[in-house]
Amino acid sequence: MTLTRPALKMTADAAHRLVAAAAEAATAMGVPQCIAVVDEGCNLLAFLRMDGGRVLSNESARHKAETAAATGRPTGNNDAELGFKLAHATGGRVTNLKGGMPIIVDGHVIGGIGIGSGTSEQDREVAEAAIAAVFGKP
Amino acid sequence: MTLTRPALKMTADAAHRLVAAAAEAATAMGVPQCIAVVDEGCNLLAFLRMDGGRVLSNESARHKAETAAATGRPTGNNDAELGFKLAHATGGRVTNLKGGMPIIVDGHVIGGIGIGSGTSEQDREVAEAAIAAVFGKP
Amino acid sequence: MTLTRPALKMTADAAHRLVAAAAEAATAMGVPQCIAVVDEGCNLLAFLRMDGGRVLSNESARHKAETAAATGRPTGNNDAELGFKLAHATGGRVTNLKGGMPIIVDGHVIGGIGIGSGTSEQDREVAEAAIAAVFGKP
Amino acid sequence: MTLTRPALKMTADAAHRLVAAAAEAATAMGVPQCIAVVDEGCNLLAFLRMDGGRVLSNESARHKAETAAATGRPTGNNDAELGFKLAHATGGRVTNLKGGMPIIVDGHVIGGIGIGSGTSEQDREVAEAAIAAVFGKP
Repeated sequence: MTLTRPALKMTADAAHRLVAAAAEAATAMGVPQCIAVVDEGCNLLAFLRMDGGRVLSNESARHKAETAAATGRPTGNNDAELGFKLAHATGGRVTNLKGGMPIIVDGHVIGGIGIGSGTSEQDREVAEAAIAAVFGKP
Repeated sequence: MTLTRPALKMTADAAHRLVAAAAEAATAMGVPQCIAVVDEGCNLLAFLRMDGGRVLSNESARHKAETAAATGRPTGNNDAELGFKLAHATGGRVTNLKGGMPIIVDGHVIGGIGIGSGTSEQDREVAEAAIAAVFGKP
Repeated sequence: MTLTRPALKMTADAAHRLVAAAAEAATAMGVPQCIAVVDEGCNLLAFLRMDGGRVLSNESARHKAETAAATGRPTGNNDAELGFKLAHATGGRVTNLKGGMPIIVDGHVIGGIGIGSGTSEQDREVAEAAIAAVFGKP
Repeated sequence: MTLTRPALKMTADAAHRLVAAAAEAATAMGVPQCIAVVDEGCNLLAFLRMDGGRVLSNESARHKAETAAATGRPTGNNDAELGFKLAHATGGRVTNLKGGMPIIVDGHVIGGIGIGSGTSEQDREVAEAAIAAVFGKP
């Protein structure tokens, strides 16, 4: 019987760099954002609300990161009804909004990033840019 | 690097006057209302539930004010599915009900007002009347 | 069998005047306050956070008003252990902080007022001054 | 009557630098920490959980920052009974743990920083070091 299994964890350095890279991409786009990075346990690792980012997007950005980390997939691709059911059943933590991306290294999901304050497409684009800047293109 | 940035805050006097002006407009309309005013950080500044206002509209009026303050836009203009997703992802704080209006002075969003207990149109009309009475026509 | 019983309700006018009277007393004292008035059902009727009032006192002021309305007594007079038990058992709504006063008319508890941001004595004093100004000395 | 009042806001840059400075101080001390920075409205601006920081300190670090921002004072100096009452009455947001420090510029409280995972003294020391590094000695 195997009692433990090896895992990969995202470092705080990586999380901090993801936040900085997302802020840079958002600045280039001209859209201030809320940026959340969670680990594979869906616990917050790093966060930044840029000047002009929406206060109420603090929570939605975090939930996007959580959803991506828990599912290992970009957020926002469920059909509407399933999306609502999952949101209801998880107190809103599983969201069907776009703008959450999983962080995957060597096949391990090590966390997620969630972006909120822009349009769905802007949020998604910033999340992808941050991952590409820190972890490279997939 | 800049450590601080100048901002404008709504005074409590302004919030108190917004509530009084909204109550006056609602009385003229014959529809008792719940009236909430929040600052730009979405924290409650002033509130009044008129005689006959609905107890359960206390919360929806506040969420309308919060949504308007956070987005800088009147509430209730998202498409249905996006509205549901945003509500789920923010514990209901971002609402797609009509009746929330941002308070904008010199280009700064300094807060929001939310009205609830009437129809969507009545709520919106009272919010607009209150802002016009206190801050003038846009 | 009697199916209904007469009751007295606080009007919104009274609640609004209590808030204004409390703000006046707090201004005279030089201590900005959060001021909450609830009805006999512990639902918020009126609220004001003065310029400089503490954001986190929004909630404690409301709980003081609720506690006074529910018990018909000034808050803050329980022994420590009972106070903690009641707070735990009510999700913090019953508070043993000073600064909440019941509004009693003709033997009916029609609501409560709660004040928060100052010292316990300042909070209590403002609550008493507001009631005296609007409902007269007991 | 005055409808608005001027205010100062902490920039996201300042918040990001506070987090980095706190992480540096914590690294020098050899104690991984959770680091939270909130604005004057007690909304999260920036956050980092260092490698080895305690997951459950995410929330306490944030509450320390909120308490310092709301009161304008270092946390942890209330007597025990008052500290418990305030925590109960605010859903735990007002904490009497040490490790929260207000950020004050030109007499304006522009936010707070909260540190959690070490001893009370370590948490407080890291908070002070971060403020000194970014905003200078008081």
